[in-house]
Amino acid sequence: MLAVWQRTNADSTLAHCVSQLEASGALDNLRIAAGRMTGDFRGFQFADSDVYKVLEAIGWEAGRGDVSAFDRFVSDTVDLLKAAQEDDGYLDSHVQITRPGEKFAELRWSHELYCLGHLLQAGVAWARTTGRRDLLEIGLRFAALVDDTLGDGHTDAVDGHPEIETALVEVYRLTGESRWLNLAQRMIDLRGHQLVGPDPFGFEYFQDHAPVREVDGAAGHAVRQLYLAAGVADAYVENGDDALLAALERIWTDMIGRKMYISGGVGSRHRDEAFGDPFELPPDRAYAETCAAIASVMFNWRMLLITGEGRFADEMERALYNAVATSTSPDGCAFFYSNPLQVRTERGGAHAQAPARRVGWYACACCPPNLARLIASLHSYAATTADDGLQLHLYESATVRLGALGGDATTATITTGYPFDGGIHVEFDAPFSGGELSLRIPAWAESFELTVDGVLTHATETDGYLRVAGNGIRSLDLALDMPVVVHQPHPHIDAVRGCVAVTRGPVVYAVEQSDLPDGLVIEDLVIDPAAGGTVGAVDPELGMPLLTLQGSRRGEVPGEQPYPEWRGGASRPNGRMDVSAVPYARWGNRGPGGMRVWLPAS
Amino acid sequence: MLAVWQRTNADSTLAHCVSQLEASGALDNLRIAAGRMTGDFRGFQFADSDVYKVLEAIGWEAGRGDVSAFDRFVSDTVDLLKAAQEDDGYLDSHVQITRPGEKFAELRWSHELYCLGHLLQAGVAWARTTGRRDLLEIGLRFAALVDDTLGDGHTDAVDGHPEIETALVEVYRLTGESRWLNLAQRMIDLRGHQLVGPDPFGFEYFQDHAPVREVDGAAGHAVRQLYLAAGVADAYVENGDDALLAALERIWTDMIGRKMYISGGVGSRHRDEAFGDPFELPPDRAYAETCAAIASVMFNWRMLLITGEGRFADEMERALYNAVATSTSPDGCAFFYSNPLQVRTERGGAHAQAPARRVGWYACACCPPNLARLIASLHSYAATTADDGLQLHLYESATVRLGALGGDATTATITTGYPFDGGIHVEFDAPFSGGELSLRIPAWAESFELTVDGVLTHATETDGYLRVAGNGIRSLDLALDMPVVVHQPHPHIDAVRGCVAVTRGPVVYAVEQSDLPDGLVIEDLVIDPAAGGTVGAVDPELGMPLLTLQGSRRGEVPGEQPYPEWRGGASRPNGRMDVSAVPYARWGNRGPGGMRVWLPAS
Repeated sequence: MLAVWQRTNADSTLAHCVSQLEASGALDNLRIAAGRMTGDFRGFQFADSDVYKVLEAIGWEAGRGDVSAFDRFVSDTVDLLKAAQEDDGYLDSHVQITRPGEKFAELRWSHELYCLGHLLQAGVAWARTTGRRDLLEIGLRFAALVDDTLGDGHTDAVDGHPEIETALVEVYRLTGESRWLNLAQRMIDLRGHQLVGPDPFGFEYFQDHAPVREVDGAAGHAVRQLYLAAGVADAYVENGDDALLAALERIWTDMIGRKMYISGGVGSRHRDEAFGDPFELPPDRAYAETCAAIASVMFNWRMLLITGEGRFADEMERALYNAVATSTSPDGCAFFYSNPLQVRTERGGAHAQAPARRVGWYACACCPPNLARLIASLHSYAATTADDGLQLHLYESATVRLGALGGDATTATITTGYPFDGGIHVEFDAPFSGGELSLRIPAWAESFELTVDGVLTHATETDGYLRVAGNGIRSLDLALDMPVVVHQPHPHIDAVRGCVAVTRGPVVYAVEQSDLPDGLVIEDLVIDPAAGGTVGAVDPELGMPLLTLQGSRRGEVPGEQPYPEWRGGASRPNGRMDVSAVPYARWGNRGPGGMRVWLPAS
Repeated sequence: MLAVWQRTNADSTLAHCVSQLEASGALDNLRIAAGRMTGDFRGFQFADSDVYKVLEAIGWEAGRGDVSAFDRFVSDTVDLLKAAQEDDGYLDSHVQITRPGEKFAELRWSHELYCLGHLLQAGVAWARTTGRRDLLEIGLRFAALVDDTLGDGHTDAVDGHPEIETALVEVYRLTGESRWLNLAQRMIDLRGHQLVGPDPFGFEYFQDHAPVREVDGAAGHAVRQLYLAAGVADAYVENGDDALLAALERIWTDMIGRKMYISGGVGSRHRDEAFGDPFELPPDRAYAETCAAIASVMFNWRMLLITGEGRFADEMERALYNAVATSTSPDGCAFFYSNPLQVRTERGGAHAQAPARRVGWYACACCPPNLARLIASLHSYAATTADDGLQLHLYESATVRLGALGGDATTATITTGYPFDGGIHVEFDAPFSGGELSLRIPAWAESFELTVDGVLTHATETDGYLRVAGNGIRSLDLALDMPVVVHQPHPHIDAVRGCVAVTRGPVVYAVEQSDLPDGLVIEDLVIDPAAGGTVGAVDPELGMPLLTLQGSRRGEVPGEQPYPEWRGGASRPNGRMDVSAVPYARWGNRGPGGMRVWLPAS
């Protein structure tokens, strides 16, 4: 599945994003800033970041395949950025057009450092994959201005939207210049002292409510929280400050245990795009912004690298295959901004940023190009190497280049039908003697079998990874038991009380109105949880296996009264029928209508 | 209860509001506009309306009792308004201070006509209760400017916030000048043609998405929707346009059947303060703004007057005793803006406009003075007279002056412990021969007994009213059966599936953490719905009877996993205990902690 996404991203999404940068005015903004045209700024104040994210996506893709179709776009845009950049390094078309001269004057909402962060990440991507540094140089000139203005010994200020922290650490890793790590650490340390100033949104929204080392959980705007967490994790890797890691653990535990949807989506509230109270997880009004799920992948990935613990890989995988995956149409050109777990058959309210169908672009366009850059770099999340071994985290049919690690072996070729099949075959091109081979055993796998070179083998599982000594291995097969699992919610999750959800492996399933018989609205469907589910045929349109559940029409006939007198418990449901469930990632692709992940249990 | 509210309002709330007008800058804004001081505008753009609502409240109170304590405030404020009013009649301190000269230039957000509406309502209140017309004259001068600018033959425009419609009809009724009725009708007819212009909030938010006669239900910002509905009802009364009444019926049916909380609160969403989808009624994130509940009282009251049908009185009563009542502290000086039906023991998110305790004032201060004007005029909702009889709608210990209606009788004195007791005694000071006596039989009353002059009497109930011929009656007793009722939600209300709520008469009850034994968090309480509830003692602190329910600790011990595997249905709950429930209107007065109206059923 990951490989298909990458192909679709390369073949369709990138070009779609480039065309939308033109249509939305994001490129025109830079042209105006560069003096090449006149006109008004269009879009949100952070529109420059859309351009940077697309450049970053193409940059990562450049490390995988042919991006020559974008050569002209990239060159033109780099030239444009150079032209728009001021002599002192400043570059932010919104400020340059709408309030020239007011640089860094209002960081609460300006997103100036946020945009710079994305510019730096784009520059790093190109430098890492191709050695091309012109984009990075533009970013570094701007970063130097920021350091000279807001760095040590200068004004104390933080951006209202974290992002630059992780970017600066990446720049430090690339360049080795401690200046950038220091600036990242400074931005982290300054946070939580109410430097953003009073605002109706409150300090929590801006991640400025408490110093990072003192926070007790996940709070505020979900994307801001998780971008900051990613940056803090990066800083921890470099400085080893245990207080930072302890804070990250508290944020993670609070988020995963009490503030995350079963889809891996986070951010329960439309208002303030925020984490809510513990266990406040409405499926219908789940905000679950695409960017927040992406940020959760980023955060979990860094925690995995820090700790080597599979629990982080499990959550990265949950978010990827569900909250992230559902946000994009199969053709890669339409997107959800918000990813609810329930859509009613009948809608009545206005649904800003939560349409019932994926759409091509958004006025606030942060999500689509964010997807593009994640997907273009997805392969780097699949496997890692260390001096003492190879670790496989996400299973996909792929070839892993082993570099100096593998002894005689230079590649490991993985063949799998994951995530819809638990069988993973790994074949080395020559005997692998590269130290320990770590194979992730997801927490959902109730059992597994390992066969090494044809021999059923016992190996130790620690921290969610099976450890196999790499002593001349030619091939191995891992068979993960992948049963259909019926889940119930923690009893404190009020919004889905009495309901069940169904998963198989890492994939969350949903029932759609379009699969129900005429005359049965999804709101009147009840599911028999004791009957479990069976794996059905591969849907020809979706290319994925459906599940078959057992359901009925609810017994209580809904009346006119919203709050009738209690009548002695639920009535017996009517009839019994097979009910198809589709991967949540693919709902809304076969006609409009209601959808539910959480289904009332009979 | 109504009488107590009125006393508290007169004795405490009015003075509190006056002091807050000073503290919030609302009066200073007018002083700046009048040239009496310098400074910046403070508060929201509609801050003038806070001043007008307080003046209106004192105006209604002037018809009931002694308001001499406010003489100075009223005179000074009327003088101030005269001084701030421009020669052409214009008066809006926000526009005058922040963008002088731009009158009516941006009606989508400016609230200029909204503020004028409140000014006119204040003027009407004083004219009706005391004959004092100076305040009304200020409003009429401004209204004349509006008519000359936006009236027939002039610019087509509507205000982004309905309010002026109902005010203009009231002015027409007071003055008899058809100009004001015409302007009201014009404002109603212009609505729904997207005259407010594009905005991220969308046309629905501004009640500009469809012509009033074409709407199919309740939609958009709840207060805007219901203020408009009240104005449309007023217009219908004067013009008899059946298409308007039919639209109001559709709005009402949709709201009451699918978009209203059991408390009578409306507006499910914090985002956009809006009605949501049908059956989208989360108890925790219920926005249920105080002003929306007040507006629902206004709308239902008008529908009752139009139709004489008790269903509207029932809903007016539901909103009054629950959603409206809960918004104010017993001392009348602290308020909720948002009125959720659930507050968790542990809160994690930011709760703008939804604090866990009532607070003295809000930056957006629409609600407290709106309460003050409603409560000050509450007596006028209790009883009405027509040529052919007397109608009692809300029961309260009170004296009704019969005027020319009653034959020998000049007063009817009502004695009752309503809403906590279903017995209502009506005593006339002389034989009542004033035509038909209509006594409301609320829909919740499962049975009733009528005794006329000591004789058990049969009378016909039609449209929710018992009709008694007024043939020399001296006294009567109505005994409404007021059982404890356990309610279940309509099965499409997902957010409270598996829960029950408890009412007695019109009063909704809630369970509070503070009444539970140590070590039991309210999230782990389950209620036995079959055990019903019994009426307990009067709580000395609240002065109201509590209910006693039967509950247990939930059987499933919540674990660490948010989404564990389904384990075969709920376990048997542990133990059994009496659980106290307090009137929802009085939760949050005995210490902080969790609260639930909807309780999981065992």
